[in-house]
Amino acid sequence: MAVYTEVTDEALAAFLADYDIGGMVAFRGIAEGVENSNYALKTTQGDFILTLYEKRVNTADLPWFLGLMEHLAARGLPCPLPVRAKDGRNLNPLAGRVAAITTFLPGVWPRRVVVDHCEPLGAALAELHLAGQDFAPRRPNALGPEAWAPLLEKSLAHADDVQAGLAAELQDNLARITAAWPRDLPVGHIHADLFPDNVFFLNGKISGLIDFYFAATDIYAYDLAICLNAWCFERDFSFNITKSRALLRGYLAHRPLGEAERAALPVLAQGAAMRFLLTRLYDWLNTPAGALVTPKDPMDYYRRLRFHNTARDASAYGL
Amino acid sequence: MAVYTEVTDEALAAFLADYDIGGMVAFRGIAEGVENSNYALKTTQGDFILTLYEKRVNTADLPWFLGLMEHLAARGLPCPLPVRAKDGRNLNPLAGRVAAITTFLPGVWPRRVVVDHCEPLGAALAELHLAGQDFAPRRPNALGPEAWAPLLEKSLAHADDVQAGLAAELQDNLARITAAWPRDLPVGHIHADLFPDNVFFLNGKISGLIDFYFAATDIYAYDLAICLNAWCFERDFSFNITKSRALLRGYLAHRPLGEAERAALPVLAQGAAMRFLLTRLYDWLNTPAGALVTPKDPMDYYRRLRFHNTARDASAYGL
Repeated sequence: MAVYTEVTDEALAAFLADYDIGGMVAFRGIAEGVENSNYALKTTQGDFILTLYEKRVNTADLPWFLGLMEHLAARGLPCPLPVRAKDGRNLNPLAGRVAAITTFLPGVWPRRVVVDHCEPLGAALAELHLAGQDFAPRRPNALGPEAWAPLLEKSLAHADDVQAGLAAELQDNLARITAAWPRDLPVGHIHADLFPDNVFFLNGKISGLIDFYFAATDIYAYDLAICLNAWCFERDFSFNITKSRALLRGYLAHRPLGEAERAALPVLAQGAAMRFLLTRLYDWLNTPAGALVTPKDPMDYYRRLRFHNTARDASAYGL
Repeated sequence: MAVYTEVTDEALAAFLADYDIGGMVAFRGIAEGVENSNYALKTTQGDFILTLYEKRVNTADLPWFLGLMEHLAARGLPCPLPVRAKDGRNLNPLAGRVAAITTFLPGVWPRRVVVDHCEPLGAALAELHLAGQDFAPRRPNALGPEAWAPLLEKSLAHADDVQAGLAAELQDNLARITAAWPRDLPVGHIHADLFPDNVFFLNGKISGLIDFYFAATDIYAYDLAICLNAWCFERDFSFNITKSRALLRGYLAHRPLGEAERAALPVLAQGAAMRFLLTRLYDWLNTPAGALVTPKDPMDYYRRLRFHNTARDASAYGL
């Protein structure tokens, strides 16, 4: 939950004057999203979201993110459509940040994932992959496998404070995952962070896919592996194969998985668990007391990783 | 900024089924309000606010707060109107809490107070006082002068950790304020927390007064003294008499202040500064590291108190 940057009335009025979206009616900080400041903006023309990009987002990447969203929205994907100012720009300065206005999407993200969420989620992920195919610009994944060793390096000295032996265990796992990482799988634009709080449902259907600020050009099946991590574990960290079967069924209905993609699922899932484990571990060890955002427990992903280490092939996920 | 209680889709759907406000369209946590969990709720009939009352609010007081809001809204004050469920109740259980739905108010709270905000604010405060006159139930102010000594007592042992000598200085000030506290001033229902983040403006006019959960039956001019503290100091803690003149002008246009009320302004302002200093000091000393809400610096109100201690009479506030 986060609003890091406060916007004065005067600055907001000046910002909105450059857009053709009606007069301001309301402006409230949203307690969701941990990377940027998000406001619900209501104008005489309707509802919008105003996002101020905070320091963790590289502003040089923003045109790519917004370009991808515009591309996907134009192909019917329910993702936020960046609104262009009168001069055609979709990124403009506000309160010392770069900001964008996007369309408001209806729906509610599931606080408790049930099986019924998983098939539509899988289908939406495949549709996202297909709709992105003809978006030409590429963005290397800044949090892909090449990033993991340097990230672990930064946390190594204090990892054992979190759990005895964790540093060595993560080094071993990372070496094994990196050595086994697949090289020739189909690649395209992936969301890379499609957690339940980034997916809105309305009347049982997906009504919104949001937060594209980790999107990148990477292995499609890795995106699926991220979703297996994010959607298919219970609160006690047991893996729910009924959920993963539904998720995969939804995905496969739109985009088939090749033999190599299927075979790689266990290592991709291990890598996905490692990626979230490593960023959370870094945040856990480096978030000052009293920060606005409470860091998430990295060990949640350690437990997921240990499950994926037991998967001998894709049948562990119900394939 | 706060959402303390998460609400599952199923619980929300069951809760909303008891109301006649249309089908659910969206539900987003709001990053405002520090005492309760607030959600922006959009239905097919419009926008609403859903509030879950957290532990700091005594649920026995809720019918009084909601009754006062209903009373004030019926008299045209722009405050949230509690929405009644089909069975007539305006408080219902949700996610282990008591919750209420209120109407959505347009506008934006001023991140930076300017003089132009102060006259309408004063006028709205007087209108609130007048509109509440025929609301019969009373609520003693749980954070009134009787509460201050016990509150200081709880922080005394560690107050000097915040600033050397603070414990003794606060004891001296409190004894002096309590001894001088006026006994026979006009009393009625006061908001008691009308800070800028509880007041929405739209096109230069007040469009919303929110967060009545500190409202109580107490000295009217004390509410004015709270506003002098909340609206008339600059970021460097200098007192802006142009703002206080505007605030008082707005108030006096609707409700005259008697001679005794005018004479008491300095001590009322000292008491108001003391009240916020004491609750902030307690929170400062007792908020665990990593809490969702960052405690506010109590010394902001120490500095205000020191200004009020120099006020010899109401002329210090421009009267």
